[in-house]
Amino acid sequence: MSQQVTQEILSELESLRLIDPHTHINPLSAASETLADIMGYHYYTELAHSAGLAKEKIEEPGISPKEKVGRLIPWLATIENTAQYSWLLEMCKVFFDFEDDRITEANWEGLYDKSLTKMQADGWEKQVLETSGLDQVYLTNDFDDPLTGFDTNFYVPCLRTDDLVFHLTKPEVRARLNKCTGADAADAKSLRGAIGQLFTHFKANNVRACAISLPPDFSPEKVSDAVADDVVSKAFSGKELSECEHKSLSCFVFWTLAEFCVEHQLPFDLMIGVNRRVFEAGVFQGQDLYDKRVSLIQYKALFNAFPQVTFPVSVLSETSNQELVSYSWIFPNVVTNGHWWYSNIPVFIEKDTRARLQAVPQTKQIGYYSDMYKLEFALPKFAMYRRILARALAQDFVVDRGWSVEKAVELGKLVLRGNVEKIFGGIG
Amino acid sequence: MSQQVTQEILSELESLRLIDPHTHINPLSAASETLADIMGYHYYTELAHSAGLAKEKIEEPGISPKEKVGRLIPWLATIENTAQYSWLLEMCKVFFDFEDDRITEANWEGLYDKSLTKMQADGWEKQVLETSGLDQVYLTNDFDDPLTGFDTNFYVPCLRTDDLVFHLTKPEVRARLNKCTGADAADAKSLRGAIGQLFTHFKANNVRACAISLPPDFSPEKVSDAVADDVVSKAFSGKELSECEHKSLSCFVFWTLAEFCVEHQLPFDLMIGVNRRVFEAGVFQGQDLYDKRVSLIQYKALFNAFPQVTFPVSVLSETSNQELVSYSWIFPNVVTNGHWWYSNIPVFIEKDTRARLQAVPQTKQIGYYSDMYKLEFALPKFAMYRRILARALAQDFVVDRGWSVEKAVELGKLVLRGNVEKIFGGIG
Amino acid sequence: MSQQVTQEILSELESLRLIDPHTHINPLSAASETLADIMGYHYYTELAHSAGLAKEKIEEPGISPKEKVGRLIPWLATIENTAQYSWLLEMCKVFFDFEDDRITEANWEGLYDKSLTKMQADGWEKQVLETSGLDQVYLTNDFDDPLTGFDTNFYVPCLRTDDLVFHLTKPEVRARLNKCTGADAADAKSLRGAIGQLFTHFKANNVRACAISLPPDFSPEKVSDAVADDVVSKAFSGKELSECEHKSLSCFVFWTLAEFCVEHQLPFDLMIGVNRRVFEAGVFQGQDLYDKRVSLIQYKALFNAFPQVTFPVSVLSETSNQELVSYSWIFPNVVTNGHWWYSNIPVFIEKDTRARLQAVPQTKQIGYYSDMYKLEFALPKFAMYRRILARALAQDFVVDRGWSVEKAVELGKLVLRGNVEKIFGGIG
Repeated sequence: MSQQVTQEILSELESLRLIDPHTHINPLSAASETLADIMGYHYYTELAHSAGLAKEKIEEPGISPKEKVGRLIPWLATIENTAQYSWLLEMCKVFFDFEDDRITEANWEGLYDKSLTKMQADGWEKQVLETSGLDQVYLTNDFDDPLTGFDTNFYVPCLRTDDLVFHLTKPEVRARLNKCTGADAADAKSLRGAIGQLFTHFKANNVRACAISLPPDFSPEKVSDAVADDVVSKAFSGKELSECEHKSLSCFVFWTLAEFCVEHQLPFDLMIGVNRRVFEAGVFQGQDLYDKRVSLIQYKALFNAFPQVTFPVSVLSETSNQELVSYSWIFPNVVTNGHWWYSNIPVFIEKDTRARLQAVPQTKQIGYYSDMYKLEFALPKFAMYRRILARALAQDFVVDRGWSVEKAVELGKLVLRGNVEKIFGGIG
Repeated sequence: MSQQVTQEILSELESLRLIDPHTHINPLSAASETLADIMGYHYYTELAHSAGLAKEKIEEPGISPKEKVGRLIPWLATIENTAQYSWLLEMCKVFFDFEDDRITEANWEGLYDKSLTKMQADGWEKQVLETSGLDQVYLTNDFDDPLTGFDTNFYVPCLRTDDLVFHLTKPEVRARLNKCTGADAADAKSLRGAIGQLFTHFKANNVRACAISLPPDFSPEKVSDAVADDVVSKAFSGKELSECEHKSLSCFVFWTLAEFCVEHQLPFDLMIGVNRRVFEAGVFQGQDLYDKRVSLIQYKALFNAFPQVTFPVSVLSETSNQELVSYSWIFPNVVTNGHWWYSNIPVFIEKDTRARLQAVPQTKQIGYYSDMYKLEFALPKFAMYRRILARALAQDFVVDRGWSVEKAVELGKLVLRGNVEKIFGGIG
Repeated sequence: MSQQVTQEILSELESLRLIDPHTHINPLSAASETLADIMGYHYYTELAHSAGLAKEKIEEPGISPKEKVGRLIPWLATIENTAQYSWLLEMCKVFFDFEDDRITEANWEGLYDKSLTKMQADGWEKQVLETSGLDQVYLTNDFDDPLTGFDTNFYVPCLRTDDLVFHLTKPEVRARLNKCTGADAADAKSLRGAIGQLFTHFKANNVRACAISLPPDFSPEKVSDAVADDVVSKAFSGKELSECEHKSLSCFVFWTLAEFCVEHQLPFDLMIGVNRRVFEAGVFQGQDLYDKRVSLIQYKALFNAFPQVTFPVSVLSETSNQELVSYSWIFPNVVTNGHWWYSNIPVFIEKDTRARLQAVPQTKQIGYYSDMYKLEFALPKFAMYRRILARALAQDFVVDRGWSVEKAVELGKLVLRGNVEKIFGGIG
């Protein structure tokens, strides 16, 4: 019975058009131009590298897209078990009429050529968006992004702030900040002013969220004005900061961002738990890992200090999901947000989704985002999530709790789309 | 097949009368008097608050029970997905003949009035107990509880010791201790004497366990007599204690409690992992959260030092369950105890129950307690647990290991009731 | 449908002959001689002890094997729910024609006598191996094991190094090292020389891996020559080492082992997370537990420094499995290895297996090892794993992803056997 109910729910959810509330899409080049744009996604290069393909082969300067794909193909045999591979296969089937069950050294060239023709045809971007049912795609924008040349009502800006919080001691980051604000930050007050300008610029361009990824050992707290002045001055005069001063600087900037989120009524996306460059010899974007020893208790001061700011929280480790559920159950300003990166795998999505559906107010759950770099990925990723969501709704709600299919579908639509609109603001 | 087996096992388990080994029932007012007693349970107020209802609305002084319920009702729509809501619905259906699938602004007043009539009728408490099949209800008693006015063989006292271990530096706690023991504790020896008096008083009133909830950073150890004398004297003379002295004081009192558990042959319930007042602006009882970075290795010294004391252990984070399973598998004096608070959700109960059934001696598992504040909650909470238990028994034992239904039911009855009697002492 | 598919896959997997890549078999006495060899396995003695049987009863010197078994039998009733008991029952049914569903005080003597006859018959070892389908059994050898008297192509040596890394400050360990190398280590250089001799000896005897179990707080790093010289000299002159010096010594030896793994092209098995002697009054081998607060980030320096060494990693806590999956997905030299000890329970194997199959290259997963002390255990342990593996393949790959049964079986065979041969080297 459960299987049939799952199918009924799934087909209803499949009819829903989507908003993707977190991606890394470049709105000036949103769709893929060759299969290399798809297979060059770090999920494939890092897995092929992990399975044995040399980084030098993958990242050799000057090789053609077709050559790059050709080098990755033989390694697909080692990763065809992975969920990531299943996305690739689904994209090839849906977008490029691929009909085999495996992409092999024997059949890849036909696939490459056929896909190239499709991607080079006029309106490919539009066709992908239509096939995928996407109504809006949220971006990840550098703080100095001019936000021009695209429709910000479709490709919605989000102010990404990792550089500001963690890399202000790098001269190039300070130079970018000074350049785009036309200011010359030198102390806490002028830095705050510069950051305010960024918010004003983004706000004028339909920004829907401030966002940041955070290492497992970060714990935001308010810094005194004196300390803030001291560390900002030091940083902006190019002096070396101690580890402790570094933390103060990060805390000051982070806290300032939260203050501007109040002022501009913006949600602040927190993506908690990543350690950057753990595997330094890894491929591009395939170097980051994590330390599961992190707790949301580290955000106690923040959540208490900013009741007016909604914090959509993503956690990298599945061992953090229950904390996320519990903190969202208690704090009005904490909401659950998607299934991030190393937790974006069916077995973890399944358990995490069930826990959230069972214990967090239904209005406080953002079901999914694709995190994609190229538009084609939204389709298989959302499809994976929808199947898992449909099964959870069928088993835990229709079968176990006697809900009607309609009511279960209503809940599914809320977490898939309704809450995205409510929390970040709707279309138009 | 598995579904039919689950049903067979479930109906057998449903015929079993229950002992609830941990509640917060006030034996002088055990059942609810209005629906506000049920919906005022922090599970509902905190979820409504989390979903957007202002604390001031919920906790406004002087509002009538009906007004309070009326304010919560509109917010039920935001939490009807939660397991907590499913308990509410089940209570209304079973106890108050509610027949709709949702409690709404349109139907709540009828429900309120009907339930009021029922609750005000003579013998409501008895009727709830009968419908719920409860043979005994364990309490949570303050150390200075006179334990009078109720049948301690039905409402069984447990000595709750959080105040003694963590709050002796508060003048009011010391005053309560001095008052109820008639003593004037001033050093380690006299404090030990006072604590001994508490045990004697409770033991004379059918106490079945000493109990405490513990923060994630607590790690009990034996304190030297000199240190104990020093910190107790300081505390009882009203001096400020350093953080380190605070820990020593807590350790001394905790260790002393364990020593009296030996003397009085009492189990010592440990509820491990809660951080109090994390969300200070939260509603009453809706302010506590946790830090999952806790390990049972912190209790190594305790478990080794008191082989004569049985420690029924509850853990707040599901990430602690495997440690609990492993420590119970190795230490004769550690037993698993229920599914506590943030882990009292089907998806966590399911996995935790399966792990315990697969790896802990069956005689060392206390399946469930309700943690309830009002009697009506035992029914839906135990019902939830029983359904999960029946499914685990059906799948993992009957289907996967070829057990007979009878044998599976035997195991279910042991963890549901048999072990409670064996570990805490039977009825009468 | 899923159940039938599971059966189809399972019967294919059952036809596969096995290599067991990690055991504690004594090749000079590999099979059991009496039922006491089986029931004396710490899994049974520690569970019986945990359930209430006194250690003195279990370990009384001079009792006969039959007496020992007789004392354990009454306690089986308390642990018949456990997975460990299910292995016992399966062994008795398959190897000793036991036909009852429970081993009781009424039927055990018949079982004992019958099993004794079988075990004392000629060719018992060979018969167990044949029934179990074992082609190779990897050992755990002390560094001073002469490795003589057995066929190292069947009973494959692995160099176990806990003593070298953690116990060189014990005079008896140093004496064993000096004796078996004929050297007199006194500083870093001579110690390195002695360790090199061990590798040469093991390499000459078909060693397939270096192996070690590690406490949760260990974090290997390179030690400078000066520090190494200092701590080695101190240790070998019998001086007391500070905690910090102890760590340096451990790090130096560990790092040296990794260097020799490069030189001799050996995988280095890491078994991460065990605390030894947590329960000191526990039975033999039933004293160890763990602290789940461990992260693979502690091995960042190691994984980066030794790209040429393959590290098959086992983790003790299920909360570490996702990190293991993620690190294996990123680092080419990290592979997943089996389901260790407290995680070797169906509910954890199930989830851990699914996660690995969904996210780690299929060529980088060693599915299972038995960890057995006596040959009879491979059969029920591998059988348990195979059933779980078959179900995961059926549900997640055939049903959910539309794979053919053949393709799923191919994947199953790879993780069950193919990868063992590829990673450690094949037979002969």
